[in-house]
Amino acid sequence: MDDCIFCKIVAGQAPCYKVYEDENYLGFLDISPKTKGDTILIPKKHYRWVYDVEDFYGFWQAALKITKKMKDVLKPLFISYFTYGLDVPHAHIHIMPRSEKETKFSQEIKKIPKEEMEEIAKKLF
Amino acid sequence: MDDCIFCKIVAGQAPCYKVYEDENYLGFLDISPKTKGDTILIPKKHYRWVYDVEDFYGFWQAALKITKKMKDVLKPLFISYFTYGLDVPHAHIHIMPRSEKETKFSQEIKKIPKEEMEEIAKKLF
Repeated sequence: MDDCIFCKIVAGQAPCYKVYEDENYLGFLDISPKTKGDTILIPKKHYRWVYDVEDFYGFWQAALKITKKMKDVLKPLFISYFTYGLDVPHAHIHIMPRSEKETKFSQEIKKIPKEEMEEIAKKLF
Repeated sequence: MDDCIFCKIVAGQAPCYKVYEDENYLGFLDISPKTKGDTILIPKKHYRWVYDVEDFYGFWQAALKITKKMKDVLKPLFISYFTYGLDVPHAHIHIMPRSEKETKFSQEIKKIPKEEMEEIAKKLF
């Protein structure tokens, strides 16, 4: 879709801190992170909602791959999944690593310097 | 596990407003609902985290079945998934239907009378 920021990222017309890519799915750091390593996973093809994605299994399988990598390299206390979707109308799963100090539900956006975002993405990729 | 409330529900030792059941998974209304129809899906076998569940696909496939039923009978604006897990240490997916007035992130618990909970569960089952 022309005006969809996630479609633009897929098309390489907008930048992202990439953490995962396969034929059908793309994962990148949320630029409005609630925790360090907060990741968004999208299907490359545009769908409105997560449950609309035709290969629902493939989508969650990709999420699980990111989860495993996240466990290994970030060693969080645990990892949360969230799907919402009123922010960007392109199906996406939030994969959120939570450290000891990041267990509460919070909408507060963390300020993480560009260099640290790049470093986290590099670790996860 | 002996002291796990969700294991007790699976064993029939604690009540629930059941909305889904198959061989491996059980779905029931959250008794601390954030929205009307707020549902919890669990594997019958005890796992700590959602991503620990051996048949990760089967788990999300059951979630998708509930999602489809929820769309049909509750006709929400959209449906959110959440996985957290510090509340009850038994892997569970929150499947949350959201109406026009229930789109915001809120931790506020809705007071829904027993009769209405029973009615919602009956519709979803």
